[in-house]
Amino acid sequence: MERRHTRKFVRTFFTSPTAVEGEDDSAKMIRRAADLRGMQAPDVWVPDNEDATAPSMRDEGAQNIIDVVSEKGGDFPGEIHPRIVWHRDSPTTRYQGFQHMLTIADPDNGAVENIDGFVIPEVGGIDDWKKADEFFTIVENEHGLDEGSLAMSVIIESGAAELAMRKLRDEMGKPDNNLERMFLLVDGEVDYTKDMRAITPTGGLPPWPELRHNTSRGASAAGCIAVDGPYDDIRDVEGYNERMKNNQAKGMLGIWSLTPGQVVEANTNPLPPKTGSWLLDADGREVELTEEDGVFVYDGDRISLEEDGDEYTLTVGGDTQTLDEEELQSELLDLASYVPSMDDIVDSMAEFEAAKEAGTGAIAITRAATLRVDGVEVDIANDRMWDEATYQAAQTPITLFQDVYENRPDQHDELAEMYGADVVERATDVGN
Amino acid sequence: MERRHTRKFVRTFFTSPTAVEGEDDSAKMIRRAADLRGMQAPDVWVPDNEDATAPSMRDEGAQNIIDVVSEKGGDFPGEIHPRIVWHRDSPTTRYQGFQHMLTIADPDNGAVENIDGFVIPEVGGIDDWKKADEFFTIVENEHGLDEGSLAMSVIIESGAAELAMRKLRDEMGKPDNNLERMFLLVDGEVDYTKDMRAITPTGGLPPWPELRHNTSRGASAAGCIAVDGPYDDIRDVEGYNERMKNNQAKGMLGIWSLTPGQVVEANTNPLPPKTGSWLLDADGREVELTEEDGVFVYDGDRISLEEDGDEYTLTVGGDTQTLDEEELQSELLDLASYVPSMDDIVDSMAEFEAAKEAGTGAIAITRAATLRVDGVEVDIANDRMWDEATYQAAQTPITLFQDVYENRPDQHDELAEMYGADVVERATDVGN
Amino acid sequence: MERRHTRKFVRTFFTSPTAVEGEDDSAKMIRRAADLRGMQAPDVWVPDNEDATAPSMRDEGAQNIIDVVSEKGGDFPGEIHPRIVWHRDSPTTRYQGFQHMLTIADPDNGAVENIDGFVIPEVGGIDDWKKADEFFTIVENEHGLDEGSLAMSVIIESGAAELAMRKLRDEMGKPDNNLERMFLLVDGEVDYTKDMRAITPTGGLPPWPELRHNTSRGASAAGCIAVDGPYDDIRDVEGYNERMKNNQAKGMLGIWSLTPGQVVEANTNPLPPKTGSWLLDADGREVELTEEDGVFVYDGDRISLEEDGDEYTLTVGGDTQTLDEEELQSELLDLASYVPSMDDIVDSMAEFEAAKEAGTGAIAITRAATLRVDGVEVDIANDRMWDEATYQAAQTPITLFQDVYENRPDQHDELAEMYGADVVERATDVGN
Repeated sequence: MERRHTRKFVRTFFTSPTAVEGEDDSAKMIRRAADLRGMQAPDVWVPDNEDATAPSMRDEGAQNIIDVVSEKGGDFPGEIHPRIVWHRDSPTTRYQGFQHMLTIADPDNGAVENIDGFVIPEVGGIDDWKKADEFFTIVENEHGLDEGSLAMSVIIESGAAELAMRKLRDEMGKPDNNLERMFLLVDGEVDYTKDMRAITPTGGLPPWPELRHNTSRGASAAGCIAVDGPYDDIRDVEGYNERMKNNQAKGMLGIWSLTPGQVVEANTNPLPPKTGSWLLDADGREVELTEEDGVFVYDGDRISLEEDGDEYTLTVGGDTQTLDEEELQSELLDLASYVPSMDDIVDSMAEFEAAKEAGTGAIAITRAATLRVDGVEVDIANDRMWDEATYQAAQTPITLFQDVYENRPDQHDELAEMYGADVVERATDVGN
Repeated sequence: MERRHTRKFVRTFFTSPTAVEGEDDSAKMIRRAADLRGMQAPDVWVPDNEDATAPSMRDEGAQNIIDVVSEKGGDFPGEIHPRIVWHRDSPTTRYQGFQHMLTIADPDNGAVENIDGFVIPEVGGIDDWKKADEFFTIVENEHGLDEGSLAMSVIIESGAAELAMRKLRDEMGKPDNNLERMFLLVDGEVDYTKDMRAITPTGGLPPWPELRHNTSRGASAAGCIAVDGPYDDIRDVEGYNERMKNNQAKGMLGIWSLTPGQVVEANTNPLPPKTGSWLLDADGREVELTEEDGVFVYDGDRISLEEDGDEYTLTVGGDTQTLDEEELQSELLDLASYVPSMDDIVDSMAEFEAAKEAGTGAIAITRAATLRVDGVEVDIANDRMWDEATYQAAQTPITLFQDVYENRPDQHDELAEMYGADVVERATDVGN
Repeated sequence: MERRHTRKFVRTFFTSPTAVEGEDDSAKMIRRAADLRGMQAPDVWVPDNEDATAPSMRDEGAQNIIDVVSEKGGDFPGEIHPRIVWHRDSPTTRYQGFQHMLTIADPDNGAVENIDGFVIPEVGGIDDWKKADEFFTIVENEHGLDEGSLAMSVIIESGAAELAMRKLRDEMGKPDNNLERMFLLVDGEVDYTKDMRAITPTGGLPPWPELRHNTSRGASAAGCIAVDGPYDDIRDVEGYNERMKNNQAKGMLGIWSLTPGQVVEANTNPLPPKTGSWLLDADGREVELTEEDGVFVYDGDRISLEEDGDEYTLTVGGDTQTLDEEELQSELLDLASYVPSMDDIVDSMAEFEAAKEAGTGAIAITRAATLRVDGVEVDIANDRMWDEATYQAAQTPITLFQDVYENRPDQHDELAEMYGADVVERATDVGN
């Protein structure tokens, strides 16, 4: 389904407490967040008047949102979507959330022109989503805003909400709602774990692969954007990046960020690398090879290779094979894979476009390299067929890049520094 | 959705054949099962008049249920839910199941006051569930029982039934059914495998992770309880416990048991351990460290560590790194994880409750330990942020324990022996 | 749900370009494909007038289908289901597809008597499926064919289509459609990856396990047949077979084939092996043991075993245990598994049938073997309980074989050569 929003992609969903007790300025955290720029600034910033803010501070938090967003919102480079309180099981909480929306969106308070929408946590079945949508409509109507102009994002943190996503496509467009305002579907794994009553021995969060799949699919079917929940272990940068890679293979390209440091990682991670690299599957572990003068070198202990005349002895893990040169090449080709750079992807796309222009529907894209294991060098070459479908599937990271480039001028300098101006220019042009 | 049943959790679902041919007393198996007490007695006992009993013995089986449950059911410590025959594709079978329900639930036969509900196997789409529900209603009406007083549990053993679960939340509460009686959603993987026409080389059951996720989610969305199917290899206690751990990370806290020995394992497994322990990820395999005088020792071959002045050489699998002390600590912290004891969980909950009382919304819970690898000792400390959501998610095993404690007085002695009276008392008090 | 089609199983879905530019005979590829016989001929052959054929060649492609199928279709041993163009987002494309269907199915053109149905790519929600179904109905009506006589298969290559599958069971049988014509649900992972906007570092396809589960479940619930998408790396025969094994554990027994070589693999893979074999789980990798004079030998480096009097030292990966004989047997039994041959399965089925006849509901099937590791021989014996459900679940590969045998006489010779005439005869008789 067509996406109705300015942003086609959202890499980062950054929450800040709206009111902190015991500070001179209770709005300190959102005031600081509003000043973020470039890679530190998220695609979507969420002044969080729910879980990040103590219940007793939430009225003050709503006022702080008004103060900070009316002052600084106009210069903020990303979108702004405050999170208000909501709960499928509590009419009190829902009414409080409605009142906060009414206040924050009041044009007399000066913030609403910089506010793109609201985030609704703890939703239940689709009828609960409709209650929230109806409050958006009333708020818009009361304040003379266009119907549907405020985007609605939800946190998926119950089994009921997970089931509701599949209905969105059918419900959107019905005359009695304005669900076309739906924007982000954001997983909230901590509360989801509670709702599902899951237990792990260490108390760590389960991986919930099916939830993430269903959120990504729900977003695809309803023209929304899928975002993964918070990654608590802020210290663990590698784990955070690993999670993003896993999410991306599910079509979930956005993730929650808890700190500006996580924002930088999450803004950068889905973009193709500057430099291509070769990986080798070393007995179940993927190892990146080191380039030395154009040769890609494996220097771990999990793979060993000996040459004896025409014969090669290859040992991977505990398994040893004696091979001739061709068999060795074939075996290493199976273990090796290439991670293309931004430039490589642009090259392949341009090559395919030229072939299509000339009337050819499919071409082979070849990646060749010399690998070195235990001093023995082996040439491998990997062919991949590209047709229209491959081309379009490969295009996703480039389309993402182009969406970033168009909507985030504050990141142009950092992108140019990352890739070089030349690659940036080619990447913004290709495929259009 | 709110759970409407006495038990909030069901750990064990134990089936017994209702009538065995060639025995003096064909009711021998259920007579013996009705005498089980303590950890050997399941939360839900299922006199099984379907697959466990030969087709020719099922009328006798229904009579045996009446005889045994009317005599011994009042003293049985768990709930009693006989399984009757049913099949989405066979009206003959459905009518036979209805007749057995009518007889077993007849108050003149003396069993129904000890019967909590019935288990319906082989259901199809939601309309098939409604046919069974209607028979419950007629049985209740004929026998002067309250509408909805007999719980209905189903075995999910077809793709159609898997799909039906997502509709339950929408259908419950409609005036033409009494589906609020729904209690357990139980996976039946053998027949499900047949229905899905899956093949494995060894003939073993596929793991069906998506089915188990969907059952757990369906239970969460409809206020039911999710239970996994039978684990055939009775000899393999380790595998059974492994399966339960995997299920628990999906929110499926109950499992089928085929023997009193399996009941003991399944009643015990979801409860937190008596003693905390440290695990180390040794090149992909989680190894529990041995405590020696307060130091946690790794003595396998997958990780090795050498100290040379300020420098450490750490080898995990085939990968060797040279690290300073701080890097080593960080590396081992990544590999280590702590499994909290019941007492640890209660401590953390009490600590958070006190902080919340004092107006603090989030605290760090620290776990510190000295690890020893190849004689080298390293101190590590693991901080975890706890906020309201973490607190509530961590509470699940304690709530489970409290549900067990309240509903299963016959297990009090064994629980006191497992944990000590002091820990039991703290665990029953915390969080209320 | 009951399957309404001649074939209960489809192993192979083979696509061929309908019109190739720059050839003397643009129909060359389908002309050649129409001549395939035996294991090289697919269960379902798909002259592909969509992605495999250039857009400019598709009118010629439709004509080529008519020419080749009217001439050679009568002798083709599999079913014939041309793929036409379709897109959920393009009425132009849908109308073009309709026109091609009208022409190809025109009895005056002589092809339709050999055509079993059409394949519709790029479907969206269920209402989009209904649009296609309506065109089938109009085509049938215009040409005097029975309503519902042309089967409809779809390619699942969008989140919306994935969601639609769960509705099929509810929609079939409604008076305003003829969706009972539904036949194959075929995953199309390249376009699905694009639609879901997934990214992988290497550009390879994500594994999409949830999609494949949902397709298999959708097929089970609606009486259709599930087929996996193309496996691009034609060179990688091992990977293709690995994928099929993975699919089969999900109940997805069919797969796309891009070459006659892949057709042979995919026609053969789901059939039980000629010879049984023992596998050993060698530290996470399954290794097939080599038979030497009735003893099954492990000769890798991942497991080692030493005998010292009554004591055995077993090392698996880095973990060493000292065991007595019984413990060693139990440990090896846990690591070992048996892959039964066609003959073994038939034996077990016959054994269970005889027991059932004699009034026994469950029997133990024992597999015994002598294993040899590092020269030490150990006897193990594996018992498995068979009851009615086990019997029926184990029957799937035999039912598949029988379906092949009945519908593909052109494969009889190859099957007799694979298994021997005796085994083939027993396998066609058992279970009926």
